[in-house]
Parts: sequence; structure tokens; C-alpha cells
Amino acid sequence: MKRGELLYEGKAKKIYLTDNPQQVWVAYKDDATAYNAQKRGSIQDKGKWNNRISARLFQFLGEKGVEHHFLKEISATEQLVRRVTIIPLEVLVRNISAGTLANRLGIEEGRRFARPVVEICYKNDELGDPLITEDHIAAIELATDEQVTQMKEIALKVNELLSEQMDRCGITLVDFKLEFGIDGDGRLLLADEISPDTCRFWDKESGKRLDKDRFRRDLGDVEEAYHEIWSRLGGETHV
Amino acid sequence: MKRGELLYEGKAKKIYLTDNPQQVWVAYKDDATAYNAQKRGSIQDKGKWNNRISARLFQFLGEKGVEHHFLKEISATEQLVRRVTIIPLEVLVRNISAGTLANRLGIEEGRRFARPVVEICYKNDELGDPLITEDHIAAIELATDEQVTQMKEIALKVNELLSEQMDRCGITLVDFKLEFGIDGDGRLLLADEISPDTCRFWDKESGKRLDKDRFRRDLGDVEEAYHEIWSRLGGETHV
Repeated sequence: MKRGELLYEGKAKKIYLTDNPQQVWVAYKDDATAYNAQKRGSIQDKGKWNNRISARLFQFLGEKGVEHHFLKEISATEQLVRRVTIIPLEVLVRNISAGTLANRLGIEEGRRFARPVVEICYKNDELGDPLITEDHIAAIELATDEQVTQMKEIALKVNELLSEQMDRCGITLVDFKLEFGIDGDGRLLLADEISPDTCRFWDKESGKRLDKDRFRRDLGDVEEAYHEIWSRLGGETHV
Repeated sequence: MKRGELLYEGKAKKIYLTDNPQQVWVAYKDDATAYNAQKRGSIQDKGKWNNRISARLFQFLGEKGVEHHFLKEISATEQLVRRVTIIPLEVLVRNISAGTLANRLGIEEGRRFARPVVEICYKNDELGDPLITEDHIAAIELATDEQVTQMKEIALKVNELLSEQMDRCGITLVDFKLEFGIDGDGRLLLADEISPDTCRFWDKESGKRLDKDRFRRDLGDVEEAYHEIWSRLGGETHV
């Protein structure tokens, strides 16, 4: 496996071609952004922890039947994934009110909902990743109705699996964001990453935030939180 | 019928009690606001035209089987309606892109959608009437799932009826906002108003805007647009 040309550089990752047209090489960065990149910084070793956390969580979900893009870890900060065309939607699942949802609805953070709240945002930096509805998605043809139904179903399944798994590690899964892509064979796959950048993780006992909110809100102990999540997931790795 | 105590003053209407606890007296004002009341002004005779337009459109919808709050006109600017508890949701139906939808999705105005787009906003001035989803509505219990389904069904029916009716008057129904309430007998009724304040009406031939966008965007001929809609609907009235 050889790392080829840089295909795309995002805020937190670089994607390279490989000698296999169906696979790309992902390098996780330490760069951190928040509030649609209005806040920028760096979190020491974030690339390493997120690469590892995401790899482990995708493997876990794969064992439970969720189809995803992850293939294998290459190094501490790099992984190989199936090449997909990302659907420009962010699918959020929220078990407890926090962040933009609490602001939108004018409610306090920390309220557990009777059932998970699914939100879909249009992945578009220029527009600020706005919340959109299924009618909007159809109107401007961002995805088919069937894809939206499938993504929501997978997101709710991921929520069940991940909530249980994190609970076993003493962590409350507050909310998270997923992205999906279509691979060369036309399959819809869970893609992107699952990490403290894309999830809200609260310590079950203390309620301490162990996620990117520590960076967003200047709460300190940022690196420690990412490391803590890795430790809670069992730590250790072969790469 | 006697006008009683002022019950509520909104941006465009005053609501008074009457001697019948099931009925309230609505007085339409000339006051106009836009962009969540950041822009304020007055449109000459708006109270009169909106009272008349809304009365006529509710009567039309009623004849077609839509259950609504309107009872009768009292004067040029006043009408009697069934007293309802307003559900704090705004149900929008959009046939053609315009306004906040065009901004949200980053598309031009004037694009006709393959099927109508329904949006629901949380009627909350402090929060800026944000777009919300059915999951949000359930999460903070703004309405029951059944009520939401019913409101969306009625909104789509109103869209069909009103699009046809306005088309007969040489007007394109671009989009509109509805509000609903629950009356003393527990019935869900179409409420509030239907007027150039709450609809986008474009002249079918010229595309000229005949609605509140003339005020919002300082396009001039504001009063004339409201009067024009009344004339196109046939004008004349017994009050």
C-alpha cells in the first residue's frame, strides 16, 4: 500500500489516493476548529487519539452489522478506508440537549429526551451547515428519499450500539454527528470519523465533558479528555 | 356582540374578549414588522385589506372543507373568530424558492420545486422563530405527533386550494405561513390570518411581488400591492 497524491484536505484530516482506486489513505491532524471555523487551534495528539478512537468504534460497529468505510490502521495517526463520495449531509442524533439544539429550542443543556432526536444538516461551510428537512433534501436533490430513510435508520442503530458501549466505559453518549458516503459499488457506507470531535461524551459520574466542547468553550484539559476516551475504550493498539 | 377587554396585542392584530367565551374580536392594525421586528413601519390601510383578504380566503377554504376559526366580519378592519389556544408553531408551505429558504439552501429565488416543501418553525420571537423538526416538537412537547401530521395535511390541502384560487386571479402562490389553534371543544382549527403579510403572491404575468416583501425590501408600491390582492379576489364587501 502506497500513499499517493493528496485528494482533499479537510479541517481535521487529509485524504490521499492510494494505488487501489477503491481505497484512500486518511491522515488525522491535530488541527481543531469550532463554530464553523471561526475558532481555530490545535490539540496536542488529537490526530492520534481520534484515529485510534475512530478505528476502534468503526470496528465495533462493523461487528454489530453496520456497514462502514473503515479498513485498517496504518500508523498512529493514519488509517485506510474505502473510497466513497460523501453525501453532503450531517446526520446528528441527540439523546440529551446540548449545544446548538439547546440554543435553537431555548432550553437548558442536560435534558434527556423521551426518544432520540435526529437532525440533518446541510454540509456546507459557506452556509454554516444549516439544519434542513427531508423536504429540503428532496427539493435540491442532496440525497434520495430512500437514502435519507436508510441514513436515519443506521444513525439510530449506531446510537443504540454506541450508547451501550460508551455506557460500559462509564460515559454518557450525549449526541453525535455521522456522515455517509457511496462507494464504487453503489453501497451506502457510514464514513468520516467517530471521535470526541464528532460526539459529545460526558463522564457518567461527574458529568465532566470529555469531548471537543473543552476546546470550543476553553474548559482546559483538552488533550487529557481525548486521551481519557481512548483509555476508557481499553487503550492499547498494534500500530 | 360587544367588544370586551384586550386579551392580546400582536404585531399586526389586537385580540379582544367578547361576551361569548368561545369567540374573540380581532382588530387588524396597519403596523408592519419584518425580520423578527428589527424593521418596523406602517402600511396605510393594511388593516383593512388584510381583514378583508383573510376573511374571504378563510370563507373560501371553509367552503372547501377546511375547518377554521373565522366567523364573520364586524367592520372594515375587524372580524369575529372562534377563540383558540394557538399552537406555537408556524407551518410554512413553499412552492417556489424565496426568502429564508433560498438563503438557507444557498439557491436563487424563483425555483419551482418538484413537490411542495413544508417547514415548521417554532413561534418564539426571542429565539427568532427557528426552523425545527418533528423530533424537536416531540422533544419539548410543542404539539402531539398526531397534531403535527394533521397540520401538515391541512397545510398541503390549503396549498392546493389556494394555489388554484390565486391562479384564477392571475397570481402565483409562492409560499405561505399558517397557524393553528385548539378551540374550546378540542378541535384543531386553522387560525391567525391569510394575507399578503403571511403569503408570497407574485403576479403571474410580470412576476411583480404583491406581498409584504415590498415592505421588507423597500420596493415601493406597498399599499397598492395589498389593495391589488383584494381587487384580484373580486373586491367588494358588505361591511
